Amino acid sequence: MNIGLLGMGTVGGGVYNAIVERDLGLSVKRILDCRALPGLEKLQTAAFQTILDDPSIDLVVETMGGDEPAFGFVLAALNAHKHVVTSNKLLVSAHYRELHEAAAQNGVQFRYTAAAGGGIPWLYNLARAKRCDDILSIQGVINGTTNFILDGMYTQNGDFDEMLSEAQRLGYAERDPSADIDALDTQRKCALSASLAFDAYVPAASIPTAGIRHITKEDIAYCKNLGRVCRLMFYASRADEGVCAQVEPVFVPGDSAAATIRGCGNMITLTGKHLGELTMIGQGAGREPTGVAVVQDILDIAQGLIQAPFSTAEAAVCATAPYRYYVRKDGAQYVSEPISAAQIHKEGADFFARIAE
Amino acid sequence: MNIGLLGMGTVGGGVYNAIVERDLGLSVKRILDCRALPGLEKLQTAAFQTILDDPSIDLVVETMGGDEPAFGFVLAALNAHKHVVTSNKLLVSAHYRELHEAAAQNGVQFRYTAAAGGGIPWLYNLARAKRCDDILSIQGVINGTTNFILDGMYTQNGDFDEMLSEAQRLGYAERDPSADIDALDTQRKCALSASLAFDAYVPAASIPTAGIRHITKEDIAYCKNLGRVCRLMFYASRADEGVCAQVEPVFVPGDSAAATIRGCGNMITLTGKHLGELTMIGQGAGREPTGVAVVQDILDIAQGLIQAPFSTAEAAVCATAPYRYYVRKDGAQYVSEPISAAQIHKEGADFFARIAE
Repeated sequence: MNIGLLGMGTVGGGVYNAIVERDLGLSVKRILDCRALPGLEKLQTAAFQTILDDPSIDLVVETMGGDEPAFGFVLAALNAHKHVVTSNKLLVSAHYRELHEAAAQNGVQFRYTAAAGGGIPWLYNLARAKRCDDILSIQGVINGTTNFILDGMYTQNGDFDEMLSEAQRLGYAERDPSADIDALDTQRKCALSASLAFDAYVPAASIPTAGIRHITKEDIAYCKNLGRVCRLMFYASRADEGVCAQVEPVFVPGDSAAATIRGCGNMITLTGKHLGELTMIGQGAGREPTGVAVVQDILDIAQGLIQAPFSTAEAAVCATAPYRYYVRKDGAQYVSEPISAAQIHKEGADFFARIAE
Repeated sequence: MNIGLLGMGTVGGGVYNAIVERDLGLSVKRILDCRALPGLEKLQTAAFQTILDDPSIDLVVETMGGDEPAFGFVLAALNAHKHVVTSNKLLVSAHYRELHEAAAQNGVQFRYTAAAGGGIPWLYNLARAKRCDDILSIQGVINGTTNFILDGMYTQNGDFDEMLSEAQRLGYAERDPSADIDALDTQRKCALSASLAFDAYVPAASIPTAGIRHITKEDIAYCKNLGRVCRLMFYASRADEGVCAQVEPVFVPGDSAAATIRGCGNMITLTGKHLGELTMIGQGAGREPTGVAVVQDILDIAQGLIQAPFSTAEAAVCATAPYRYYVRKDGAQYVSEPISAAQIHKEGADFFARIAE
């Protein structure tokens, strides 16, 4: 199978290395990138049209990130009857319907396992579990950057700005960290996971979401006193009227598996009617784990393996059950009576976190 | 696909229910069982030959357990060009080579994902990871019965006999619990996992193994004082001279994921050269999770999905690196200097457990 690779950055480089390392029956025919790629000049092109017009290219890998020009390229590739694999959650969540429909209309596949969970084969196993089970709920820690910050604040007693700078220094956080710390990245991954789990299109923007931008040492100290650890988590479940979903900081019990997730780790759980809970823990990001996840998608297409079903019918996102929340507001810290996520968003707070059952 | 089901016990019943619950393109044509099966009389047979001679049966599911007559039936089914799926780890580990070779010679598939990890799609994901990564090591908690006992001793301050009786009362332990508490069950699952991970046949009996039959409240108290939790674990890794493997109680750090595995839970980790650590936590046993795992194997065969490669060339099982051990011997309790598993087995002790790094 011949591949056109869009973007030779961190993930693209991991994909390239994993493909050339062993005989997988895959060949990188062209690489679209404007930067110098020493030793790869023969493969390199600066014109996407070269890839689009090459009938020998069966599959396009998009690892550029961002919306445009990635969206235009991916849509054109699908319309040219080429399979597409991407690691770009922003792209997939922003254009979920159009991309899935274009793939279906053109009889090709569109896969993005690496877009949620990095190296963890989460979306693939979710699709596999769905073959013979009903998914009741999904939840987890799916953003490595914020987990690095929260873990650092807990274990090293650091403050938020310190830990964010450290994450940026190590390459775990972008210069503009908004998508991570405001939980938009988690929101997108939640939307992709819930859409697959519950056979309905869950728009990212419809998920009530709170991040960790305003968390302080005082919040962590209060959390510790409760015998808990703070994690940024997503949660989604099937409901009579649609899908319940939310993204927010959660104080999890100190003896839970989520409390043990160190650094940039991810932990994602599905609950099946028959299977019960199945949890996967692994590297949610990084050149090599994400690169391997992309290559696994390519091999699944080449070998005709399980494709995640999708639905473009939009789900109503409905209110979750009331929970108790830790709240810091106007200098006061307290644990609320059970209230809904909608209510806590409406009332506002300097920082809040759900108290896990 | 038409199925002949051997044994309508706990797992067999789970398989039957999962198949009839939804349209999977699967049909149970015959059930071999001598017990009364009200409502299923038309499917029931007491003669395996009926299944063997039925050319419309493509696949045999073996959930009887034990060695004979399961072995004879499974071998005959393979030789009659029928695929076989089993949950029987004793059968697979006792006749690994002969069964794999019979399947290969007859051009049919032999799968047993449910034999190691119950409802956790462990062996399937291990095979999938191997497609484009080198597996460096595997390890984990893969026996629910002993985890129930160890978790109970830790959290309820119970003694071994109490917790074993409780496990038996709840149906988590057999009347003769030897296979679980002497770690032979874990040893078999380790052998199956290591054989797949490292492309070599690892005989179960070649793995140095110690169980928890002689663990006492005093051992647990010592473990707690070290800030640790006791788990029965397997470990295997690739080595220059073959495969390192061992099964033994381990004192794991109190803030590790393994310490959070409650009751009958299982937790299994693979470390890939590219992927890093990937951990799966779930239900290692039980009617429904195990039933679903068997049905997933059937669907994988029906859909032509990834088949685990196998090798019947025997691996040399070599010594692991030296570790420190907790030792109780002649009334004294201490932590040893780093010594090999071979040495600790040779010296003998009333109870010992490896101190995890």
